[in-house]
Amino acid sequence: SKNTLNSVEQSRYLANCIPTLPLAQSTNGLTQTNFSSLLFDCLDVVVQSSEYRIEADTFGELKVPVDKYYGAQTVRSTMNFKIGGPSERMPIQVIKAFGILKRAAAEVNKDYGLDPRLADAIVQAADEVAAGKLDDHFPLVVWQTGSGTQSNMNVNEVISNRAIEILGGKLGSKDPVHPNDHVNKSQSSNDTFPTAMHIAAAKEVHEVLLPGLQHLHDALHAKAVEFKDIIKIGRTHTQDAVPLSLGQEFGGYVQQVKYSIERVKTAMPRIYELAAGGTAVGTGLNTRIGFAEKVAATVASLTGLPFVTAPNKFEALAAHDALVELSGALNTVAVSMMKIANDIRFLGSGPRSGLGELCLPENEPGSSIMPGKVNPTQCEAMTMVAAQVMGNNVAVTIGGSNGHFELNVFKPMMIKNVLNSARLLGDASVSFTDNCVVGIEANIDRINKLMNESLMLVTALNPHIGYDKAAKIAKTAHKEGGNLKETAIKLGYLTAEEFDAWVKPHEMLGPK
Amino acid sequence: SKNTLNSVEQSRYLANCIPTLPLAQSTNGLTQTNFSSLLFDCLDVVVQSSEYRIEADTFGELKVPVDKYYGAQTVRSTMNFKIGGPSERMPIQVIKAFGILKRAAAEVNKDYGLDPRLADAIVQAADEVAAGKLDDHFPLVVWQTGSGTQSNMNVNEVISNRAIEILGGKLGSKDPVHPNDHVNKSQSSNDTFPTAMHIAAAKEVHEVLLPGLQHLHDALHAKAVEFKDIIKIGRTHTQDAVPLSLGQEFGGYVQQVKYSIERVKTAMPRIYELAAGGTAVGTGLNTRIGFAEKVAATVASLTGLPFVTAPNKFEALAAHDALVELSGALNTVAVSMMKIANDIRFLGSGPRSGLGELCLPENEPGSSIMPGKVNPTQCEAMTMVAAQVMGNNVAVTIGGSNGHFELNVFKPMMIKNVLNSARLLGDASVSFTDNCVVGIEANIDRINKLMNESLMLVTALNPHIGYDKAAKIAKTAHKEGGNLKETAIKLGYLTAEEFDAWVKPHEMLGPK
Amino acid sequence: SKNTLNSVEQSRYLANCIPTLPLAQSTNGLTQTNFSSLLFDCLDVVVQSSEYRIEADTFGELKVPVDKYYGAQTVRSTMNFKIGGPSERMPIQVIKAFGILKRAAAEVNKDYGLDPRLADAIVQAADEVAAGKLDDHFPLVVWQTGSGTQSNMNVNEVISNRAIEILGGKLGSKDPVHPNDHVNKSQSSNDTFPTAMHIAAAKEVHEVLLPGLQHLHDALHAKAVEFKDIIKIGRTHTQDAVPLSLGQEFGGYVQQVKYSIERVKTAMPRIYELAAGGTAVGTGLNTRIGFAEKVAATVASLTGLPFVTAPNKFEALAAHDALVELSGALNTVAVSMMKIANDIRFLGSGPRSGLGELCLPENEPGSSIMPGKVNPTQCEAMTMVAAQVMGNNVAVTIGGSNGHFELNVFKPMMIKNVLNSARLLGDASVSFTDNCVVGIEANIDRINKLMNESLMLVTALNPHIGYDKAAKIAKTAHKEGGNLKETAIKLGYLTAEEFDAWVKPHEMLGPK
Amino acid sequence: SKNTLNSVEQSRYLANCIPTLPLAQSTNGLTQTNFSSLLFDCLDVVVQSSEYRIEADTFGELKVPVDKYYGAQTVRSTMNFKIGGPSERMPIQVIKAFGILKRAAAEVNKDYGLDPRLADAIVQAADEVAAGKLDDHFPLVVWQTGSGTQSNMNVNEVISNRAIEILGGKLGSKDPVHPNDHVNKSQSSNDTFPTAMHIAAAKEVHEVLLPGLQHLHDALHAKAVEFKDIIKIGRTHTQDAVPLSLGQEFGGYVQQVKYSIERVKTAMPRIYELAAGGTAVGTGLNTRIGFAEKVAATVASLTGLPFVTAPNKFEALAAHDALVELSGALNTVAVSMMKIANDIRFLGSGPRSGLGELCLPENEPGSSIMPGKVNPTQCEAMTMVAAQVMGNNVAVTIGGSNGHFELNVFKPMMIKNVLNSARLLGDASVSFTDNCVVGIEANIDRINKLMNESLMLVTALNPHIGYDKAAKIAKTAHKEGGNLKETAIKLGYLTAEEFDAWVKPHEMLGPK
Repeated sequence: SKNTLNSVEQSRYLANCIPTLPLAQSTNGLTQTNFSSLLFDCLDVVVQSSEYRIEADTFGELKVPVDKYYGAQTVRSTMNFKIGGPSERMPIQVIKAFGILKRAAAEVNKDYGLDPRLADAIVQAADEVAAGKLDDHFPLVVWQTGSGTQSNMNVNEVISNRAIEILGGKLGSKDPVHPNDHVNKSQSSNDTFPTAMHIAAAKEVHEVLLPGLQHLHDALHAKAVEFKDIIKIGRTHTQDAVPLSLGQEFGGYVQQVKYSIERVKTAMPRIYELAAGGTAVGTGLNTRIGFAEKVAATVASLTGLPFVTAPNKFEALAAHDALVELSGALNTVAVSMMKIANDIRFLGSGPRSGLGELCLPENEPGSSIMPGKVNPTQCEAMTMVAAQVMGNNVAVTIGGSNGHFELNVFKPMMIKNVLNSARLLGDASVSFTDNCVVGIEANIDRINKLMNESLMLVTALNPHIGYDKAAKIAKTAHKEGGNLKETAIKLGYLTAEEFDAWVKPHEMLGPK
Repeated sequence: SKNTLNSVEQSRYLANCIPTLPLAQSTNGLTQTNFSSLLFDCLDVVVQSSEYRIEADTFGELKVPVDKYYGAQTVRSTMNFKIGGPSERMPIQVIKAFGILKRAAAEVNKDYGLDPRLADAIVQAADEVAAGKLDDHFPLVVWQTGSGTQSNMNVNEVISNRAIEILGGKLGSKDPVHPNDHVNKSQSSNDTFPTAMHIAAAKEVHEVLLPGLQHLHDALHAKAVEFKDIIKIGRTHTQDAVPLSLGQEFGGYVQQVKYSIERVKTAMPRIYELAAGGTAVGTGLNTRIGFAEKVAATVASLTGLPFVTAPNKFEALAAHDALVELSGALNTVAVSMMKIANDIRFLGSGPRSGLGELCLPENEPGSSIMPGKVNPTQCEAMTMVAAQVMGNNVAVTIGGSNGHFELNVFKPMMIKNVLNSARLLGDASVSFTDNCVVGIEANIDRINKLMNESLMLVTALNPHIGYDKAAKIAKTAHKEGGNLKETAIKLGYLTAEEFDAWVKPHEMLGPK
Repeated sequence: SKNTLNSVEQSRYLANCIPTLPLAQSTNGLTQTNFSSLLFDCLDVVVQSSEYRIEADTFGELKVPVDKYYGAQTVRSTMNFKIGGPSERMPIQVIKAFGILKRAAAEVNKDYGLDPRLADAIVQAADEVAAGKLDDHFPLVVWQTGSGTQSNMNVNEVISNRAIEILGGKLGSKDPVHPNDHVNKSQSSNDTFPTAMHIAAAKEVHEVLLPGLQHLHDALHAKAVEFKDIIKIGRTHTQDAVPLSLGQEFGGYVQQVKYSIERVKTAMPRIYELAAGGTAVGTGLNTRIGFAEKVAATVASLTGLPFVTAPNKFEALAAHDALVELSGALNTVAVSMMKIANDIRFLGSGPRSGLGELCLPENEPGSSIMPGKVNPTQCEAMTMVAAQVMGNNVAVTIGGSNGHFELNVFKPMMIKNVLNSARLLGDASVSFTDNCVVGIEANIDRINKLMNESLMLVTALNPHIGYDKAAKIAKTAHKEGGNLKETAIKLGYLTAEEFDAWVKPHEMLGPK
Repeated sequence: SKNTLNSVEQSRYLANCIPTLPLAQSTNGLTQTNFSSLLFDCLDVVVQSSEYRIEADTFGELKVPVDKYYGAQTVRSTMNFKIGGPSERMPIQVIKAFGILKRAAAEVNKDYGLDPRLADAIVQAADEVAAGKLDDHFPLVVWQTGSGTQSNMNVNEVISNRAIEILGGKLGSKDPVHPNDHVNKSQSSNDTFPTAMHIAAAKEVHEVLLPGLQHLHDALHAKAVEFKDIIKIGRTHTQDAVPLSLGQEFGGYVQQVKYSIERVKTAMPRIYELAAGGTAVGTGLNTRIGFAEKVAATVASLTGLPFVTAPNKFEALAAHDALVELSGALNTVAVSMMKIANDIRFLGSGPRSGLGELCLPENEPGSSIMPGKVNPTQCEAMTMVAAQVMGNNVAVTIGGSNGHFELNVFKPMMIKNVLNSARLLGDASVSFTDNCVVGIEANIDRINKLMNESLMLVTALNPHIGYDKAAKIAKTAHKEGGNLKETAIKLGYLTAEEFDAWVKPHEMLGPK
C-alpha cells in the first residue's frame, strides 16, 4: 500500500541489511533473547523491505527503508562510497563507543539544560546502540570521509529516530528529537569521532587483547614451571650451543608476553584522553565550560576505564599520535608473538627429520596417511596475525603522519587497523593458548638424546684436563661421529667415572 | 524429529550462518533470482537450523548443519580458529577461484580416467561455487593453517556433498563422490591453494582494478584536454613558481595512472603461472605427466586469461614472490593515488582561505551553515585507501619472506591483503572518478587572479630590461605588495604597453 | 726494514683507514688536541702503512697493519664481508658503548680476582675506546654476523693490544692481556653485544634525541605564546572552518612534541635493562653470582643513566623487543614531526599564491630572480627524516621478529637503524628549530585579510537574526564574492554597528 | 700569508675533508695512481687547510677552503643542515651521475651555441666528477632541501671552478665559467636531480645489483646440478613430508633468483626515462626544442644504457613513482633472499642437534672450543640486508607518496634508499655466494639417514597392501620408534625383498 521497493531495490536492500545483523557478534555471545530478536529481524526483512519512507538532508530527498532508523545522510553515504563492500564496514566497536559517548553527552547536556524528556530518550536509544541491539542500522564503510562525519551522522540519525519512536513520534520527522540539535548537541564530528576511536580502542584492549595476552602468559608460565628440570641443548645462530633448561627457554617467552602486556598498558594513558568538548577545531566553540570534563567523567563511569578530557584539544583533533603509539605497542607484541610461535613450531618439527624436542597437540588431520604429521597450524595462524599487525602498523603510521592543519582525515582507516590488530592478537592468543600451548609436551627421550650427543658439553672438561685435550676430544668426536664420553675414554684422557663426575649439564645452567 | 539443535545452538548457528549469505556480494550484484534464493535461505535457516547431521573426519564425529554442504573438517576448523569473526573470512574470490580450479581438475581427471558421471557432477558443483551460488557454505576465516588446507577441504567437502546431492546420494556419505579421492584427485592443498590465489588475484586485477584505473585515467585525460588552455601559477616546494597550464598539471596525473596500469600489467606474467600439478612438495607425486599443463590450459580457457603451468613447482609452493611483486605494483599505484588526491584537495581548498583553483563537486552536506564548505571526501577516501594498501604491502612482504623449506605458510594472509588492495584501489578509483573527477571545474577567476599577482612572471622581463632592473621590480612589488605591472611602471622601467607585450604567460609553457 | 706492504696493499689500506678517523665525530666536537692527534694519524698513515705484523686466529695467520690495534679476527671479517663500504660501518656509538661495558666488566672482574695490573690496563684502554680516541681501529661493517660477534672481537682485540702496549708488551702477542681470557672475561658476544646496543641507544636518546626534542619544544612553545592573540581562520579537511588563535594552533604542535618526549621516555625502562651476565645462552655460565648486577651498577655509575641487570637474560639475548619498542616510539615521534613540518610549510606557502599566513626565514637562495621565493627547506629535511625513521622502524620490526631459539641474529642491523633514527630526529629537530622555527613570523595582514573574508563567521549571527537569514547572507556572499558585512547590510538584515557588535572572532576561541 | 684558518677552524675543516676522500670507494677500487692522489690530498690538507678564499652567493660572503672547488652555496648548506654527519652524505653515485649529465648538457648546449671553449672545459671537469676524481668536493648530506637543489649547486660550483682552473681563471670568480649560466644552462635542479637519480639508479643496478644476482644464480644453479641425484626428505609446515631431490630444492632457489633478475629488469624501462629538459616545473621553459631528446641520447651514449627523454616531464618532476616501482622490485628480491638464506641456515643447522643436511663453509672461528660450530654468518648478513631493504622500501614509498603539485621534495631520501638497497643486495649476493654457496656440501650420510627413517615413504605401499595396512605400519613405527621396513616385516605384511622393491624414493620425484 505504501511506498514499495521494486524487486531490484528489494534485493539490494536485503543484501545490505542481512549481513549487518550479527556481524560483530562474537560467536558465543548470543542469548535466546537475541535469537528471537534476530529471527524477527529476518522475517521482518522479508515483510518490510518493500517499504520505505522519504527523508531529506540539505541536498534533497532520499528513500530510506522503513525498518531502518538511519536517515538521509546515511543513505547518501552508501551511494557515494561503494568501496570494498560489507566486510569493510566501520568497525562495530566504533559504533558501540559512539553509543557510550552519545549517552554521556546527553546526560551532561541535560545538566546544562537539555529537555529531560528528550535527554532520557536519547540515553535509552544510545544505550541500545552501545549494547549492540541496533547493529544492523550502521551500513557505512570505512572508506568515507576521513573525519568519520558520516558515521557520526549515522549514529545521530539512528539515535534520533529511535528516540523519536520511544517518545511516540514519527520516524524521519526529526521531531521531537533532532539528530543535530539534540543528539549531536555541543558536539562536532571532529571531536566525537576521535572520542569514539579512543573509547573503542581502550575497550578492545581491555576486553580482548589484555585478557588474551594474560591467558597466554599464564599458560606459558605453567609450562615454564612444568619444564624447569628438563635440561636441553641450547641453540644460537640456529647452531648447537651450551645447555639450558626447557623451563628457562619457556621463561624467555613468559617474559616477552609479560612485557607485551606492559607495553600495551604503557600506551594507554594517552588513549584515555578524550577529545570531546573540542568541537569543530578544538576551541570548544558552542560548548559550555566544564562540558568536556563532565563528558569524560561520565564515559569513565560508564566504562570503568580512567578516561579524562584531553589537555589539548587541538592536538586531539589534528593528530592521532596516541593511536600510532598504541599501534606501535601492538607491533612490538606482534614481534614477540612471531618469535614465540616460530620457536615452538621449529622445536616441534618432525616427527623424524626435525628438531623434535616438543610434541605439539594434534588438532586436525595433518595427513590422511602419516601418523605424527602434526602441522603446527596454531603457530601458523599466530605468525600470519603477526605479519598482519606489522602491516597494519604501517598503514596507521602513514595515516597518522598525513594530517593537515586542524584535522587529521585518516581517522576511520586508523581506528580500523588499530582495532583489527588488537582483536586479532587477542583472539589469536586465546586460540594459540587453548589449542596449542596448554597441550605442549616435552619429548624427553629426544631432548636427552640430543643433549647426550652434543659436543658442547666438552666445555666442562677444560678445568680438569686442559683446553687442548678437551678440544682434541671434541674434534675427534665430530670427525668420527662418536660421542664425547666414548671418545674421551678411547683417547685415554680420562675414565668413564671421571667423565660422569665432571660433565654435569645441570650444573651449567647458571652462574656460580 | 531428527537431531535437534537446542536453543543455544540455534542462536549460535543463526549468528554464524546469516552473515555469510551475501557477505561477499558486491552491493549491486544481486538479481531477482539471487533475491529469491536469499529469501529462501533466510526462511530456511529458521526452519532448518534446528537440524544437523553427523559427519566424521579422522579425528572423530562432529555435528554439521543439515542445510550446509560442508563437512567435518570445516566444522573442526571453525572450532579451532575463533579469530577475528566473520569480517575475517577467507575472501570469497579465493573460494570462487577454487571453483574454477576444481572444475578444471575434474575435466582433466576425466581425460585421465575419472568416472565421467562423477566428473560431470563435480564440474556442475564446482561451477556453482565459481558462480557464487554457494557462498554461504564457506565460513572459515583467514587465520587458519598457513597452507590454506582447511579452505581447500572446505571446498572439497562442499563440492563433494553438492555432487552427491546432484547424483541423488546422501550428504555426508562421501559416496559416490569423495572429497579427497575424487574432488581433490591429483591435487594437494599445497598446489591448489597457490593456484586459487593466482586465479583470484588475476581475476580481481582484471575485473575490478584495471577497469577502475582505466575509468580514472579516461576521466583525468578528459579534464586535461578540457583544461589545456587555462594557464596557472606553478608550485614547487609548495611555493609559487613559473606558470604551466592546468591541462599540463592534469596531464601529469594522467601519466601516473597510465603507468599505474602498465605497472600492474607488468607484474601479471608471473601471476599467470599456476602451481597446479606440483602436489605435496612440488614434485608432482601422484599426478600424471601432462596433468599440470592441461589444468592450466583449462583454467585459461574458463577464465579467458593467459594462465600457464609454473615452470618450477618448487618455487611456486615454497615462495609467493609473485604476490609480493604484484603487491609492490599495487603499492606503487597507491603512491600515485595519494599524490593525485592530495593535489586535488589542496587545489580545491577554500572557498576563501585556501588555494581555490579548482571547484570540487559537492556530494554531501559539508556544513549546515556555510555554503561552499565542500569537504573533499572522495580525496579522503582515496588517500585512506592508499595508506591501507601501503600497509597491506608490508604484511605481504613479511609473509612472503618467512616461508620455510618446501612450503610458505602465510598463504591466506598474503592473498587476503593482495585482494583487499586490488579491490580497494579499483573501487576507490571508480568512486573518486564518478563522484569527484568528472565534476571538477576550474575556478578561472581565481586562477587568473593568482596568475596576475604572481611575481614569477618578472622572469620574462630579463631579456628586455636586464636582470638587475627586473629584480628591482620584483623586490619592490614584494615589499610593497604591489603587482608587477604597476610597480614596473612606477619605477619608470617600462610602459604599460611594453609590459603587456613582453609578459605573456602563455609563451612560458614549453621550450622554444 | 720490516714487513712491507706493496703498493696495492698500501693503497687499499689507506683507503680503509683514512675515512675511519673522524667518521663519527660531530662536526663541531673537535678540539685542538684532537686536531693534533688527527694530524699525527694522517702523517702516520703515510709513513707506517707500508708495515704490518702477523697475527693469528684459529683459522691461521693474517697480516695486520702495524699501526692498528685490531687483530686477526677483525681483519678476517673485513675479508669476508665486503658489503656496502665505509658508510655502512658499525655505528661508532656501539663501539663507544663497548668501551664503557669493557671497562665495567674489567672493574667487576678485578673484584672477583682478575690481576689488578691487567684490569687497570684494560680499564685505561677501554676508556680510550669510550672516549672515541681509537675510532679508526674499528673498520667492520654492520653486515657481518648477526650476533655482532666480530665487532665484539674487534673491541677485545683493540683493547687487549692497547693494554699490552700500556703494559710494555708486544702487539699481537696476546700477552699479558688476552682478548678472550681477560678482556672478554665472564662475557660472550651474546650478552655483550645486546648490552652495548642498550648503552648506545640510551646514550643517543639522552645526548642527541631528547635535547633536540626539548629544544624544538621550547621554541614552539615560545611561538605559541608570541602568537596567542593572533586570531586566524581554522582549516579542517583543508577547507575553511571556524577561527582559532595562531597560538592555539602552535599549542597543538607543542603538545605533540611534549608527548614525543614522553613517549621516548616511556620506552626507556626496558632499554635500561642490560643483558651482561647472561653469557652464551642466557644462563650466565662461566660468570660468578653477582657479576651481572655489579656490571649493570658500574655501567649506571659510568653513564649516569639508571641501568639495571635484565631480570630475564634469556629474553634479553633471544629477543630485542625493547629496541622494537623504542623504534616504535621514534616512529611516533616521526609522525608528529611530519605533521608539524607539513603544516608549517603549507601555512608559509606563497608568497602570493599560497596560504601565506606564516613568513618562514630565508636561509639560502630560493631563486636567483624572485624575491620571496623562500623554499621551506628545513621542513623538507624534517619530513625526509620522518619518512626515513618510518622505514627504519619496519626494518627493526622485521629483524626483531625473526630471532630463533636462544639468540636473535639481526642485532647489528637493528641497532644501526635505531641509532640512525634517534640521531636524525635529534639533529633535524635542532636544525629545524634554529634555522626555521625561531625565525617564523606571523603575516598578520594576510591572516587578518583571510579572517575578514571568511564566510564561517556568519555562525555568530544565528542567535541574532536566525539561521535562515544568516544562511542567506553566507550564500549570497559566496555567490557574489562579497564579504559578510557588506552583504548583510545590503540585504538589509542588520546595520554595520550590529555586525561589528555581534561578529567577534575573539569570542569564538573557547567554550562559554 | 693569506687568509688563515684559526685552530678551531682547521680542526673542523680537517674533520670534514678527510673522510670525504675515499668514502665511496669500493675497498678494492684503488690503483697506484689513486694512491698517490690520496697521499697528495692528505698532505695537502695539512699544508693548505689553514687557507681559504672568500666566495659569495646572494645571501652574502662565506669562507671557502682554498683547496676545494665548491663555493658559497655548498658552504651555506653545510652550515644549515648539520644532520647525521658524514655517513649521511649524498650518495657518491648521485654525484657521479651528475657528472655524466652535466657533460651531456654541455655538449648539447654547445650544439645550441654555447662557447665551445667553455663547453669543452665543462665537459672535462664533468668527466672528472663522473670518474670520481673530485669526490672530496661534495660534503653535503642527504638531509637538505628535498629537491636536491643544494647538491645540484654543489656540482655546478665544483665544475665551474674546475673549468675555470682548466681555463686559467681564478677560483670563485665565476669567470669565464659561471655555475648557473653555463654549467646549469637549460637546466633546473627540478629536472637535473631526477635525471641524476635515474642515471645513478640504473648504473647501480647494472654495475652492482644485476651482476651480483647473476653470480648468485649461477652458483646456486651449479649446486642444483651437483645435487640432482641426492634424494632427501621434504618438509612442509616445517614437518616431514614426501621426498624430493636436493637438486630440486636448490632449483627452487635458482628460480627465485632468476625471477629476481627479471623483476629488476622489468622495472627499468621507466627508470631509463630522464626528466632533463623539463626545467623548473616540467614545461621546459628556457630550453630549446630538441634539448631534452639530445641530452637523453647523449647520456645513453655515455653510459651504454637505453636512456630516453621522459614522455611527460610534469610526471617526471612531481612524482618519482619509477623509483618506488624499482624499490618494490628490490623489496621482492629481498623477500627471495630472506627465504633462501633462511633455508640454508636451517638445513645447515647442527652439527648434532639441528637438521644437518648441509655442511656450510667455515669462514671464521665460531667458537674457541667446539669444532663444527659453524655459524651461518653469511646467511645472517644476507637476512639482515633483506630486512633493511624492506625497511628502505617503506621509506621510499612514504617519500614518493608525499609529493605536492609540480615537485616531489623527498628526492634525496628516496634515491639514498634505492641506491642503498641495490648496493646491499648486490654486495651481499656476491659475499653470500663466494663465502657460502660455492662451498656448500651435502651431508649425504645425514640426508640418507633421515630419508630412511622417514615414515612418509609408507605412501608407496598403498597400492600394494592397501591403505589400512600401510597406516598400521606407519602408526606402529611412530609409536615404537622403529623404521618402516622392520615394522612392516614384524607385522607380517610383506617381506624385506618386497619392501625394497616397492619403496623407492627416487620414483617419487615426479609425475608418472
